[in-house]
Amino acid sequence: MREVAVIGVGETEFGELWDRSFRDLGIEAGLKAIQDAKIASEDIDAVYIGNMSAGKFIDQEHVSALVADYAGLADRHLPTVRVEGGGACGAVALLQARLAIASGMYDIVVVGGAEKMTDVGDVQAAEILSSTADQEWESVFGATFAGLYAMMARRHMHEYGTKREHLAAVAVKNHKNGSLNPEAQFQKEITLETVLNSPMVADPLGMFDCAPLSDGAAAVVLCAADRARKFTDAPVLLKGSGQASDFLAVHDRRDLTTMDATVIAGKRAFQEAKLEPKDVQVAEVHDNFTISEILAIEDLRFVEKGKGGPATADGLTALNGKVSVNPSGGLKARGQPVGATGVAQAVEIVRQLRGDAGKRQVAGARRGLTHTLGGTGATAVVHIFERGA
Amino acid sequence: MREVAVIGVGETEFGELWDRSFRDLGIEAGLKAIQDAKIASEDIDAVYIGNMSAGKFIDQEHVSALVADYAGLADRHLPTVRVEGGGACGAVALLQARLAIASGMYDIVVVGGAEKMTDVGDVQAAEILSSTADQEWESVFGATFAGLYAMMARRHMHEYGTKREHLAAVAVKNHKNGSLNPEAQFQKEITLETVLNSPMVADPLGMFDCAPLSDGAAAVVLCAADRARKFTDAPVLLKGSGQASDFLAVHDRRDLTTMDATVIAGKRAFQEAKLEPKDVQVAEVHDNFTISEILAIEDLRFVEKGKGGPATADGLTALNGKVSVNPSGGLKARGQPVGATGVAQAVEIVRQLRGDAGKRQVAGARRGLTHTLGGTGATAVVHIFERGA
Repeated sequence: MREVAVIGVGETEFGELWDRSFRDLGIEAGLKAIQDAKIASEDIDAVYIGNMSAGKFIDQEHVSALVADYAGLADRHLPTVRVEGGGACGAVALLQARLAIASGMYDIVVVGGAEKMTDVGDVQAAEILSSTADQEWESVFGATFAGLYAMMARRHMHEYGTKREHLAAVAVKNHKNGSLNPEAQFQKEITLETVLNSPMVADPLGMFDCAPLSDGAAAVVLCAADRARKFTDAPVLLKGSGQASDFLAVHDRRDLTTMDATVIAGKRAFQEAKLEPKDVQVAEVHDNFTISEILAIEDLRFVEKGKGGPATADGLTALNGKVSVNPSGGLKARGQPVGATGVAQAVEIVRQLRGDAGKRQVAGARRGLTHTLGGTGATAVVHIFERGA
Repeated sequence: MREVAVIGVGETEFGELWDRSFRDLGIEAGLKAIQDAKIASEDIDAVYIGNMSAGKFIDQEHVSALVADYAGLADRHLPTVRVEGGGACGAVALLQARLAIASGMYDIVVVGGAEKMTDVGDVQAAEILSSTADQEWESVFGATFAGLYAMMARRHMHEYGTKREHLAAVAVKNHKNGSLNPEAQFQKEITLETVLNSPMVADPLGMFDCAPLSDGAAAVVLCAADRARKFTDAPVLLKGSGQASDFLAVHDRRDLTTMDATVIAGKRAFQEAKLEPKDVQVAEVHDNFTISEILAIEDLRFVEKGKGGPATADGLTALNGKVSVNPSGGLKARGQPVGATGVAQAVEIVRQLRGDAGKRQVAGARRGLTHTLGGTGATAVVHIFERGA
């Protein structure tokens, strides 16, 4: 398959950005990535957008055409594609763009991810997030998104002896990393006590176990690897991708403490890249709740099943630990504008592999991984990146 | 680029299907296509879904994972992708699936399109359709979807002398075709007077100038052409695809009477297929309003600019006319479950090229075209199909 490289990245700050619209955010991220790639608008063959729920958050569908229009590209009449897959949409969009280049149809594609979540009330936002779970068999009976993840956490505690302190260690680590990221929503360290004493959302998950609602956008420029050197001396190769689905409703799944979609997406990505988890120095994983990161590092085989909590508490996933997980701060501290997530993870990994990650730089990062979830794990996508030789 | 063929098609009836859910419809169409292709579930590498607004129509996002789950495929953990692009989403999904096969990542992909529109009130449905236009600069000021198309019709009348009778001729023709299609929403012929005397929706478009709100689903099975003969003696090749975008808002465009996105998508598709409009015997075009079909047949160069109305009234686009346009009945009579549209058009073309179209069969159909719009024309997709030799 024709190889694909990332030649440019860009993103907005993440946060409650009251003064900026979906359009503003999408354009800012896209233009930053285009400038970073040093391409001209004439070089762009297509635009892909990951977005979860613009229809419900800002009453606007068809954001694919919108983003190209507002980026000043309308008179180029580019193919524009919006992909949705719950929280995984940005990572799915990245994969579709990769395949489109690999097919030979396009050479250079801009992939953006964006979400504007704070134009609706918090309760409405929670309802919108829940619409990526099974509306007819979960949400309708009152199971919130946090409630479904709380069940996974409770079962993990039961089966493996995971403690609330282990969950909290994820939040503490990611806030520490976020404090080093000038684009993060929360740039402030927190203590274990802060997490443990935070108001309960869905037992055992407190407020500091949950990622925030956010506005933000991110973008990358993908290019056929055989053309990438024309634009940059530091291309980052997309070496492997895996995507997998699972039963939409949590109660239909084989196991509450393993996300099969993550396991299989990971295997597919590592297999294509011909690599193992030990070959990866840095990973951005989907920590929409603290339990999610523990499941992710286990299901991606960075740590043994059931040991994710102690591994985190012991610092194995801290910055420059055995594997640096969520150096950006993750969804927890960097923020969670849902459509942007998968693309923002790729932005962070590319910066790490280029050595451009500033105070949160992972020493000697040569290969990095992104892991993104849709819904409560009915979609998972893993991408593996490598610094060009 | 690796060639791709359609090896199976299926669809539900279209209509106000009160007793069937989105899930029921999606599964029925998908299973029919899989049976038609004579593949086993183990043969499927991925599932792509075109859907416009399940989030707003049935409060369910993440329908990619849902459809695979409810089709009994969850334990295969397939990659599932939902694509949205207003009314063009099914055609965009078809293109993404084609590129994914062309890349070499997959060999066999099921592409579905579905929409369940009648679970909300008609006014809410109109609001949802309008959310594919420019929400901030059109809808918010009261411009309905029908109103925006009405402006195009009025300007076409002014510039080219098109009359209401010409618009009405589109509806009469498509209802006549629909009367020959057992899966159409309206299987009843209508007269010119019925259209002209129908209640005005947005001058000059009366009720019978507008396609209905519908429930329904359609699916096709795509296969790498080099493997297609294992499954069928009658593969239909996807010879060319073109997709183009335009300014989201109608007022920003160069011309009200030409859809540049259609012109350019058509050129790209014909160029790739190395064909001309005269090589096509049958076309399914996006007639969400009668004016849309007139613009489409002009912009695709089946007739001279400005002559679409008289050409239709003169029968050039009637069944077995110069080019048979919308033999299925089109969106107007077959129905318009938005997400299903682009895929249903492909289903009809494949049936025509196989000689399986029953009473509405176009004699000697060897090549066929689909044309699908998103929003008011900010997205257009054209696919060209050819009967395998």
